[in-house]
Formats: sequence, structure tokens, C-alpha cells
Amino acid sequence: MFSFELLAKEDDARTGRLVTPHGTIETPSFVPVGTQATVKAVSMEDLRKIGSQVMITNAYHLHLQPGEDLIERMGGLHRFMGWDGPLMTDSGGFQIFSLGAGKAHGVGKIAPIFPEEKDRGRHLGSKKGKSLVRVDEDGVEFISYLDGSRHRFTPEGVMEIERKLGADIILVLDECTSPLHDYHYTRDAMERTHRWSVRALEACQRTSNRRQAILGIVQGGAYQDLRQQSATFIADQGFDGYAIGGSLGKSKEEMYQVLEWTIPLLPQDKPRHLLGIGEIEDIFEVVKRGVDLFDCVVPTRTARTGTLFAKGAERCRIHILNAQFKDDPRPIEEGCHCHTCCNYSKAYLRHLFLAKELSAIRLATIHNLYFIESLMHQIRAAIKEGRLATLKQEWLSSS
Amino acid sequence: MFSFELLAKEDDARTGRLVTPHGTIETPSFVPVGTQATVKAVSMEDLRKIGSQVMITNAYHLHLQPGEDLIERMGGLHRFMGWDGPLMTDSGGFQIFSLGAGKAHGVGKIAPIFPEEKDRGRHLGSKKGKSLVRVDEDGVEFISYLDGSRHRFTPEGVMEIERKLGADIILVLDECTSPLHDYHYTRDAMERTHRWSVRALEACQRTSNRRQAILGIVQGGAYQDLRQQSATFIADQGFDGYAIGGSLGKSKEEMYQVLEWTIPLLPQDKPRHLLGIGEIEDIFEVVKRGVDLFDCVVPTRTARTGTLFAKGAERCRIHILNAQFKDDPRPIEEGCHCHTCCNYSKAYLRHLFLAKELSAIRLATIHNLYFIESLMHQIRAAIKEGRLATLKQEWLSSS
Repeated sequence: MFSFELLAKEDDARTGRLVTPHGTIETPSFVPVGTQATVKAVSMEDLRKIGSQVMITNAYHLHLQPGEDLIERMGGLHRFMGWDGPLMTDSGGFQIFSLGAGKAHGVGKIAPIFPEEKDRGRHLGSKKGKSLVRVDEDGVEFISYLDGSRHRFTPEGVMEIERKLGADIILVLDECTSPLHDYHYTRDAMERTHRWSVRALEACQRTSNRRQAILGIVQGGAYQDLRQQSATFIADQGFDGYAIGGSLGKSKEEMYQVLEWTIPLLPQDKPRHLLGIGEIEDIFEVVKRGVDLFDCVVPTRTARTGTLFAKGAERCRIHILNAQFKDDPRPIEEGCHCHTCCNYSKAYLRHLFLAKELSAIRLATIHNLYFIESLMHQIRAAIKEGRLATLKQEWLSSS
Repeated sequence: MFSFELLAKEDDARTGRLVTPHGTIETPSFVPVGTQATVKAVSMEDLRKIGSQVMITNAYHLHLQPGEDLIERMGGLHRFMGWDGPLMTDSGGFQIFSLGAGKAHGVGKIAPIFPEEKDRGRHLGSKKGKSLVRVDEDGVEFISYLDGSRHRFTPEGVMEIERKLGADIILVLDECTSPLHDYHYTRDAMERTHRWSVRALEACQRTSNRRQAILGIVQGGAYQDLRQQSATFIADQGFDGYAIGGSLGKSKEEMYQVLEWTIPLLPQDKPRHLLGIGEIEDIFEVVKRGVDLFDCVVPTRTARTGTLFAKGAERCRIHILNAQFKDDPRPIEEGCHCHTCCNYSKAYLRHLFLAKELSAIRLATIHNLYFIESLMHQIRAAIKEGRLATLKQEWLSSS
């Protein structure tokens, strides 16, 4: 059902082919985020045209609404949402703990590289100081942000939710820590995550569910010894692949360090997923360090505010509401083959954003997703030809 | 550039072919409303796939934002918004006066059949008693709902705006009255509209603009003698077609009466457009009385609230948030060929609406627009075969 084959390497960067029951993912690949069983503002047909290879939804959100039982009755998540390609489900560990630690620390979000948290805070009215989460050895109890109802997630329970959802690749329940957690708490949480991982894997093996690949999650915050312990432990459990989760530190440099401590300890022949990155520069940096898959809401979230990706612009972004685009008859990017650039000018998109028309958001999202897919296509080709550094230079020199 | 050919009649109902510089409209036809140079929540590609034959945008809204000069510089409205089919522009008379009379009368909207007004009221904070409009013989002065700036529309000025926008079919500036205006005011406003119509037509003839068909607008409220005077006067001016505007009374019955007084006095060989209707039952009734074109926001607006058209349902509508659709794996309508029904279940759409996902709105809009196009297709065929009454029975018996 599953296989992962490496096609080429350039130093630690690699390109490969991950085969799932619903199709093949050429890696390294971006994974668009479809938290609530849809990538915000676009349809499944849009995603297919964009060339998205895989999507990640969220067990926590779908458990709360519409519920995994309903989705199972509807024939599983693929059929429910009309996506017949490879599909992942995140366990929701990050979401649960961002409601807890983020609240308890009054930081509103765990780290700036996790933009998801920002919205979550809004849902909850951004009250400080009150954690909505209680963690114990068995699992975690939390309050729904939708209706205040109480829920309990255990490692076994989450595997059962994800089995019902039926994605191709599923993640175990982990406890995410914040950069504000100290060394001792981070170590305790990591060890708990390890014990939970063993239980999750056992639960899956009991149901002899071999249609779903299971990823273990490496924790340990921004502490070198903890990351190395966690990578060694998780690498030993027989997972089908590995995710790198939790706090990746307070800066890009710390994130790159976390990867450098962790990835060399993970098996070469299994895919590695990084949870939650997506700036253009970051993509080059994490691929260079051996990441195969990464998800991120940056392309879709920034699109909704009118921030559009464009090669050659500062930080590869333009803001469409800028007055300079008022009467610009050109597409967002000359030569871009996305639906938006093939059909609409910057002047028109700017008008749609100013007029608060919903179509603006879809058209912007289509462009940003296409932009990342196009970048990833070039990155895969570059790794095969040993010129990843040159490609990075080409993309980022002007920005 | 323009021709209108009648293909068949069944009593007063007719089916024909209206040729414009951007293509042919089979009549009777629904005209989706694209007020701000987009039909809300869908793209031009969506409209083409839906089979929309023509679109109507609004000179008033586009004058305020982004401005007709910018659109002209961008190559005109067709190119600006990426729509290469037949296109109409409403003058904005209705919008201007709904800000005036609606306010002055404190009714919030002119008549329940004009749902557009509801949103307008919200923009303005629904203050009662203060008209934003001052009308004089020369034209009308009004305050922008966007930024409070003052503007003046004259019959000649509006023709110039619409020339710059460049739609195929344009409407003259009229003064709309409310059902709350008395006979004398309604008569004065109608006579002013007549004088404005003559000026508008002269202004167009001076610029010898023959790439745009011009529709005169019949006014006169719900008063028989005024409607008849207005129809007779407007019919005499040499317009390329006729719109029926202003107050159509306080009930469906009064609206049908207005049509029965007006339409027999209009030339048979010119198209007739009714401004602002769209309930399924109304469509049958107005087509029966000889209407060729009608625009309406009902299909798109109701879609945004989760109200979806379905033949056989009460009033041909279902509300997708109803609990009965929670685990309904079927499409909105069995056998519907729209993108939404071909790909998604009611259970999934309900989930998207509950989760407040933007894609819900687009998918719902696509279905409702397709539903109306499909109805109009059947209506045209029925008129050719003399079975319009049977078709109506078939559509509305169960509702």
C-alpha cells in the first residue's frame, strides 16, 4: 500500500516518491492545509488544477465538527470532501495544546511560525491566563472552542478517530510545548509523548490497520539533548514516517538547528514531515536539511489578506491593495500559468479586494498555492540536477 | 451590431434571440447580477460553465469604485473583469433613489421584491429619516455610501459613464419611486424620467455610439394611468429596448398588473427587461406576460445564506443547515449537472456552511445560478412547443 523511494540526493536534500493508496506524492512536497475538510476558499477541482499532490486535515477540528462518525458513515473523508488524492490527518495535538499552553502563558500563540494559533485565539476571545486543557498520563481533556463542551483525547482514541476519517497518512497524538516552557516541563512532555506514541502504535497494530501509514512525532522543544533523545526513541518504534513537531524555537535559526539535531537520527528510508512552515526562504532551508513534506497555512492565509506571492518581489510577496497596482493591467506574475494570472489583472484583483468581493479570496488563494507548487516542482528538479543552492539564489537574490 | 428576432410565441410569452457585439442571448433569459464587476462568490469561468448568457453590472457602484475612467484605461469592463459575453450596465437609478426615498420614508427598502436594498441599508447603518439624495430637473446629487463624498449624476453624465464602461446594453438614468410615494410625486418623477430619457438618448446620438444598445425605462409606480402614459411615451423615443423599473407595487399581484398595463404598449420587436425579480413562481408569471430579460440577486443572495434551489421542495428551496441534511449523502438535486451537485453531498455542504468555510458560498451560488439557467432553458423550449403552463405546473405543483 505504501512505499517510499529516494530518487536523488544533494547533500542532505532529497527527492523521492511516496506511494499511498490514493496516489503518489513526488517529494519534497508542500501539503496544503484543509483543516475543516476543505482548503479555505478553494474547491477540490481547484486543487487538482493547481497540481496539489496531497492535503492535510485535522482530526481535532473534524472530531468537533461534523464528527468522525458522520464522516465514516459518509464513506470516509476522501469521499465526504470529494478529494481522491493522497490525504493526511494531523492528530490535533498542536491545536489542543495551543489552547492550553498558549493561554496559560498568555502569549496568544506558541511561536510566530505557527500562524494557525492566531485565529484560534480569536475564536476564544483571546482571554489570557486560563488554560482550556488538562493533561494527564492517560491523555488530555479539553474544552471545545465551538460550544464549550468537554472532550478527552487519548492516544488510542485519536487513532480510532483517524481510522474512521480514513486518511492515507495519520499522525499520533503528541503533547506540544511552547518556547516558554522550561527544560523540565519540555522533557516531561516529551517523555509522555513517547509513551503515548507506543500506545498509539499498539492500538493501530491491534486493529491491523495497514491501509494507513502512521507517522510518529519527534518532540523536545529547542533543547538539543531532548530533540536527539526524542528522534532516537521515535526512530526506534517502527513508524512509517516521522513528523517533527512542537516548539521549533523562537527564530528561524533555532528552527534550522532543531532540524540539524533531529534529522540525522531519523532513518533515511522513511519520509519526514515538518509541521507548520511556509515562508519561501524557509522552504529552501528545510528542504536542504532533508525534509520531505511540510504543511503550512501561510500561502492560503496571506492570500485572504491580499498578500500574493511573486518571484522577484521583496520577500517574494506583493500586497495587492498597494496603490501602485491600481491600474496595473498585468497579472500578479508574468508567465504564471495559474487560473488567476491567466485571466485577471492586478488592477481587477485590487478592485475585488477593495470591494470586499469573496471571489478575490479564491483567486488570490489559487495563485499562492500554484506559486508554491511551481516552486516545489523546480526544487525537485534542482535536487536531481544538484543545483538547489543555485535555485535558491535565483529565487531569493532580489528579495 | 444588434438584432432581436422572435422565434416563437405562446400567447404573450415569447422566445427569441438577442444578438449583441459580444454574442447572442437566447430569450427569455435570466441576467445574473454582477454589481461590482463580479457575480458574488463566483468567477467568470464558473459563469461560463454554468451557462450564464449575459451579466448586468452597475454604473453607480462602478463609478464610486474603481471609477469608470480606470475601467476605460484597462480596456473597458469586458476586459477588466474577464467576461467576453454579452454585458449590461444598469444606470444606478434604483440604487441612488433607494438611498433617498427609502431613507426619507424610513422603510429601509423600497419593496420586499428588491432585496438589494437590504444590504444597502446596512452599509449606511440604516439611519432613518435622512435622505442622501437631492433630485432636481438637471439630475441628482447624492452622497457616496463608501466615503461620504458628493456626486452628481445627470442623464448625459450617466451615458458617458456607461460609454466608458462599454457594456453591450446600457440603461438610461431614471428616477425610481417607492410604493410609499403618492400619486402626484410618482407622476412628477415619471415625467422627469421622461425628460431625462430624451436627453440621454440625444447625448448618445451626439457621440454616435452604436456599439451599445440603449434601453429606456418605463416608470409610473403601481398607477395604471401613469404606467400606460410612461409606456406610450418611452415606446415612442426610438430606444433599442425597454426596461420596466421603479415600484412594482406591494405584492406579486400588483407586479403582475403593472406588467399587464405596460407590456402591451411596448413594441413587439424590441426586448423587454424587468429589473429585479427572481422567485421561481415570479419567473413563470413574468415570462408569461412577455418579459424577455430579468435580473435578480435572489439566486446569489439566498445561496450565501445556505438557501438552495431544488425542484420539488417547498417554494423550490431547501435550507442546507436543516438537521435533516446532516448525513444526507445525496447532491442538492438528483440529476443536476452543476459542478456542486456532480461533486458534493448535502452533508458536506452543510458541514461547510456550519464551519463558515468560504467555499460553501461559491458552491451554493454555482448551484442556484445553474438551477435558474436550467429552468430558463426548459422555459424557452416550452414556449416553442406551446406548453409553458404545463411546465409551470410541473415545477410548482409540489411546492
